[in-house]
Amino acid sequence: MNMIQTLSQLVNCLRSRGIRRKVAVVCPNDPHTEYVIIRSLREEIAEYLLVTDSAHLDVAWHLWSASPDFIRIYEVATPDDAAALAVQLVRTGEADILMKGLINTDNLLRAVLKKGVGLLPEGGVLSHVAVAQVPLYHKLLFFSDAAVIPRPTLEQFRAMIMNDISVCRKFGNDEPRVALIHCTEKINEKFPHTLSYAALKQEAAEGKFGRMFIDGPMDAKTACDKHSGDIKGLSSPVVGNADILIFPNIESGNTFYKTLSLFGDANMAGMLTGTIAPVVVPSRSDSGNSKYYSLALACLAGNQQDQ
Amino acid sequence: MNMIQTLSQLVNCLRSRGIRRKVAVVCPNDPHTEYVIIRSLREEIAEYLLVTDSAHLDVAWHLWSASPDFIRIYEVATPDDAAALAVQLVRTGEADILMKGLINTDNLLRAVLKKGVGLLPEGGVLSHVAVAQVPLYHKLLFFSDAAVIPRPTLEQFRAMIMNDISVCRKFGNDEPRVALIHCTEKINEKFPHTLSYAALKQEAAEGKFGRMFIDGPMDAKTACDKHSGDIKGLSSPVVGNADILIFPNIESGNTFYKTLSLFGDANMAGMLTGTIAPVVVPSRSDSGNSKYYSLALACLAGNQQDQ
Repeated sequence: MNMIQTLSQLVNCLRSRGIRRKVAVVCPNDPHTEYVIIRSLREEIAEYLLVTDSAHLDVAWHLWSASPDFIRIYEVATPDDAAALAVQLVRTGEADILMKGLINTDNLLRAVLKKGVGLLPEGGVLSHVAVAQVPLYHKLLFFSDAAVIPRPTLEQFRAMIMNDISVCRKFGNDEPRVALIHCTEKINEKFPHTLSYAALKQEAAEGKFGRMFIDGPMDAKTACDKHSGDIKGLSSPVVGNADILIFPNIESGNTFYKTLSLFGDANMAGMLTGTIAPVVVPSRSDSGNSKYYSLALACLAGNQQDQ
Repeated sequence: MNMIQTLSQLVNCLRSRGIRRKVAVVCPNDPHTEYVIIRSLREEIAEYLLVTDSAHLDVAWHLWSASPDFIRIYEVATPDDAAALAVQLVRTGEADILMKGLINTDNLLRAVLKKGVGLLPEGGVLSHVAVAQVPLYHKLLFFSDAAVIPRPTLEQFRAMIMNDISVCRKFGNDEPRVALIHCTEKINEKFPHTLSYAALKQEAAEGKFGRMFIDGPMDAKTACDKHSGDIKGLSSPVVGNADILIFPNIESGNTFYKTLSLFGDANMAGMLTGTIAPVVVPSRSDSGNSKYYSLALACLAGNQQDQ
């Protein structure tokens, strides 16, 4: 497979491979969600199961009228009911992807994480993966976690890396380069994540993550700029050439996401992984493009059966 | 005073006001430090007290030969001796600024922080302030802490804000807008810094920080992009228009610094404050321009007597 190198190539790849996913949407009654639905129908990468509360049924019918062959409507009483039903549609295999509309994220996640009837396998770890297309970087940049895990434990770091590598491979990158981010290169017990990093490198050396490169701790610039590595006398397959950045906490991951999208003029995509199917939870301040690319990312990642 | 709106205006301002500082340099024997010294001598914003170990005396004399009227040389046995003497030159008022050359940062900071003979007043808080000139932002952006304080306590947050406001005022901004950064807008005891933020806003309302605006928690994009604030229904003098960003921990502050400088195509400057005189500690991977602007920033900040 050719490597997917931009977010528009991602969409083209879905179209040329004829991938069209079934997406269950919880409360599709805000302009951003409508935009994503209409654009993805036009570009033929998705069809929809719209789960809506009664108060907003008119919006769903309006969408349906534009593309009746590719939309089914499910009416329930409340947004929480919509979340529960959409999750069930994914569990039973009627939908491949779950997407958030106008519902509080916490409420949606409660349905996703509900034991026995949610989307997280027992012992699984929910994490967020983002993909950035940055004008000043020579390839796509994958990173975690900007949205879900506040202070990753060793187990959570491990799951984040596995989830990100799995996404990277879907883009055709069979040997991703993972940088473990900190503000210096030192392992220091005052920063417990650097101890996790040492353990993760050991596990990688033992083959736990398959074919990949891993290095760190290092800062975000050293990970993505060979010149910075040279100045520090650092050289590895990861330094200056990272595909995946693993951040030590949610504040730094979120700052990276927001800074790239605002000041780096980047296009972004993101989704939740670790679940039996991708969950699309766009950030309110994402651009329309980013929201659309987030859906496309989930379509590429597909459902568990593909993985 | 007119507002200084770019880093090159900062240099012009020093020149037009005839500000020329005395800078004590610890081990000026690496190409980056030499570059800053030569450029600042040419632009007449600094003169130098070069404190060098015997092994590198030749470099100091080489610099001296280019500008003998504005350079004095002090020879000592080791880099640690150089740090101790340079700190003493600042304490006695013979120098206005301390600048790092080729010495380990930890060793330099040990001399700076040494009780009774260092540069930190009793009860003072050392913090790092950075200034970024970002093509996609409409003004200079000040932020802390990318380099020194791992997890600020309430007291350290307070000092960071005071230090940053003081620097902002030197740039002619009399009413700076301070954003307290987190990944959401919620105050949540699981994230102790958000509790500190609530306390800081209360203190600001009581006038503790003088004329200024403060708001948060909010993410970095909401702080600097009015559109993101609008989407979230947030509006304040700070949202979308921040002058100062206060980060919750060193990993997020450092990530912001590195991401702006690499992917935001930004020019950066930075220094340590809270000491009786500014301390210039350029990051190894900073560009020559950033290192020079860091010195210029310290020259503007001046010594304690000006403050």
